[in-house]
Amino acid sequence: VVSKLPQTGTTIFTVMSALANELGAINLSQGFPDYDCSPELIELVNKAMKEGHNQYAPMAGVMALRERIAEKTEKLYGAVYNPETEITITAGGTQAIFTAISAVIHPNDEVIIFEPAFDCYAPAIKLMGGVVKSLALEPPNYRIAWDMVKRLINQKTKMIILNSPHNPTATILHKEDIEQLSALVKNQDILILSDEVYEHLIYDGETHHSMARYPELQQRSFIVASFGKPFHATGWKVGYCMAPAYLMNEFRKIHQFLVFAVNTPIQYAIAEHLKNEETYLGLAEFFRQKRDYFRNGLEQTRFKLLPCNGSYFQSVSYQHISDEKDVDFSIRIAKEFGVATIPVSAFYSKGIDHHVLRFCFAKRQETLDKAVDRLIRI
Amino acid sequence: VVSKLPQTGTTIFTVMSALANELGAINLSQGFPDYDCSPELIELVNKAMKEGHNQYAPMAGVMALRERIAEKTEKLYGAVYNPETEITITAGGTQAIFTAISAVIHPNDEVIIFEPAFDCYAPAIKLMGGVVKSLALEPPNYRIAWDMVKRLINQKTKMIILNSPHNPTATILHKEDIEQLSALVKNQDILILSDEVYEHLIYDGETHHSMARYPELQQRSFIVASFGKPFHATGWKVGYCMAPAYLMNEFRKIHQFLVFAVNTPIQYAIAEHLKNEETYLGLAEFFRQKRDYFRNGLEQTRFKLLPCNGSYFQSVSYQHISDEKDVDFSIRIAKEFGVATIPVSAFYSKGIDHHVLRFCFAKRQETLDKAVDRLIRI
Ligand SMILES: CSCCC(=O)C(=O)O
Ligand SMILES: CSCCC(=O)C(=O)O
Repeated sequence: VVSKLPQTGTTIFTVMSALANELGAINLSQGFPDYDCSPELIELVNKAMKEGHNQYAPMAGVMALRERIAEKTEKLYGAVYNPETEITITAGGTQAIFTAISAVIHPNDEVIIFEPAFDCYAPAIKLMGGVVKSLALEPPNYRIAWDMVKRLINQKTKMIILNSPHNPTATILHKEDIEQLSALVKNQDILILSDEVYEHLIYDGETHHSMARYPELQQRSFIVASFGKPFHATGWKVGYCMAPAYLMNEFRKIHQFLVFAVNTPIQYAIAEHLKNEETYLGLAEFFRQKRDYFRNGLEQTRFKLLPCNGSYFQSVSYQHISDEKDVDFSIRIAKEFGVATIPVSAFYSKGIDHHVLRFCFAKRQETLDKAVDRLIRI
Repeated sequence: VVSKLPQTGTTIFTVMSALANELGAINLSQGFPDYDCSPELIELVNKAMKEGHNQYAPMAGVMALRERIAEKTEKLYGAVYNPETEITITAGGTQAIFTAISAVIHPNDEVIIFEPAFDCYAPAIKLMGGVVKSLALEPPNYRIAWDMVKRLINQKTKMIILNSPHNPTATILHKEDIEQLSALVKNQDILILSDEVYEHLIYDGETHHSMARYPELQQRSFIVASFGKPFHATGWKVGYCMAPAYLMNEFRKIHQFLVFAVNTPIQYAIAEHLKNEETYLGLAEFFRQKRDYFRNGLEQTRFKLLPCNGSYFQSVSYQHISDEKDVDFSIRIAKEFGVATIPVSAFYSKGIDHHVLRFCFAKRQETLDKAVDRLIRI
């Protein structure tokens, strides 16, 4: 068969997690916690199953959950989404992203993405016959040069994909970015896909500039979020997409034939869990402590720390230590030092390699300690 | 935005289940049970969560589950699938079907489907730029005229989609079908997508002619199956796809960017549950009893029963009762008689209406009794 994605191999997450398991290395590569989700949340899933919530959910998701999401969004960002027509529950953030892209990208449509970019954007665009226009950002701050974005825009530009807090770089969009973006898309037929799965993980008093805060952006945006990341249950695979009805209508046409519906008992459990806003409002402080703890540890190593304003990833530069390619270097430190990381070049399409590694710090203190003990020896 | 699927509305399942809920009608439309899955299975999910299986599963699925599937497939159909490279766990049968189509259908490729056809095949084909070549089958037996299939085949034919036991018609493929199909695809570059989600629901001593039984067909097939249907937990959304490595390799390229992975605790639970083969070998007898019970009831109505050799659907013809369109008729009997059904014309693309309704009999005896009591009055 002729491949639809001839250049695509296995994701870096699968590769590095498999390597970590094989070597028994400390796995700071793929983004998931090494501690468990809350026992209350598990009990809520158990309760939902025992109460008999085991058959198909409605195609767009359990209404109670959609209502909690609408309430949370209005409270945090001021946007009013109609749960009936503007919110859909998905099998994780990835499915929401794939579906949003599938719903609107036609052959030859151009989509602007910023690299390093989470690895599922480009394949979905290409699968739909779209064209990826990528703008490479530079460490340490990975700021978007909006005048460069402007140059990429033409009649064929259909969508811009944003991701704040950003994976893998841990940067966030600032007020100036929003202003420049708004000026750029004004009076243009350009949609936005905003990957906000780390919305609650934002530090140092910074604001999460959700597209939901800005009506002129909100009305052209698919906003994607996740419950796996905030609730420490990445294996449950429940996320959601919000969009104005004219976009959500197209999203659901695909969603209904792509998965039809999403796990029912987990939707009931999360709807219940969300009633307590501390479950998500407490996350920033929880992860800030981990970030600071891990950064303190890393200060003792030879690595140079990059800024971390959001997400649960910390990147480091090693170009003063070695001129090995980041892929080779990350494999070597997994093998020789027993710590698995993600080489950030994996998120660039054109082989750009700034000699930066990404660590996930959603780990127990002991794990971070052990990792630092090993990284000090590099 | 320009719709990717301009002709697509909301699925008939969503429409009829919503109508049933609104009216408080007995819902024999969408295919799901009104009794619960086994408490042991719920407890296995609870146990998996409590044991901490709450983070990302491997992209292709939990290995223990893939191994159980390989064993079951070899035992039942004699085919050896390598769980490492040839089996992938999916978020339900629908996701497996969408992914298989996405993985191999290029623009202008032709795909042969048989109508009435489950409603997710055609949209996935169209979304990939493929062309649907449909062959309409006729009640009461809905047999495939293979000489007609032959006429549809040309250089562009990339795939044939089969579904046995068949939804909505409850027919099955017979030995002769397999022979004709084999002759047809021999020495041709034609793939098969075989939707076998009702594999265990087959009656009257008939054989399930899985593509896995026939090496020359197996080596060109994606086989899709489900756990939601057999284990009475349609809301859990776990299924799988099996295919030779050269096809599975392409399947996984899409899968990893479409959902990345599937619910972890449920995969562990089902892996455990599958150790007892009675969990699936007992299903044919369980549903045969329901089928016979429901058919006996329906004999008292004015409907004409169509054959039911597999699946948990029973179709009836009403053309001697009314000449209303089946959509109108099904809405009317939901409203006036309180029983929701599926109009089979919804599974034909070209407005073909044989005046046939589909009932789901995966229901408690009391529910079937109540439904029959109402249907007798028509
Ligand atoms: C979807 S698997 C990878 C998890 C993740 O978001 C990451 O590690 O970046
Ligand atoms: C995927 S929702 C519909 C369930 C089903 O298989 C059917 O009713 O035919």
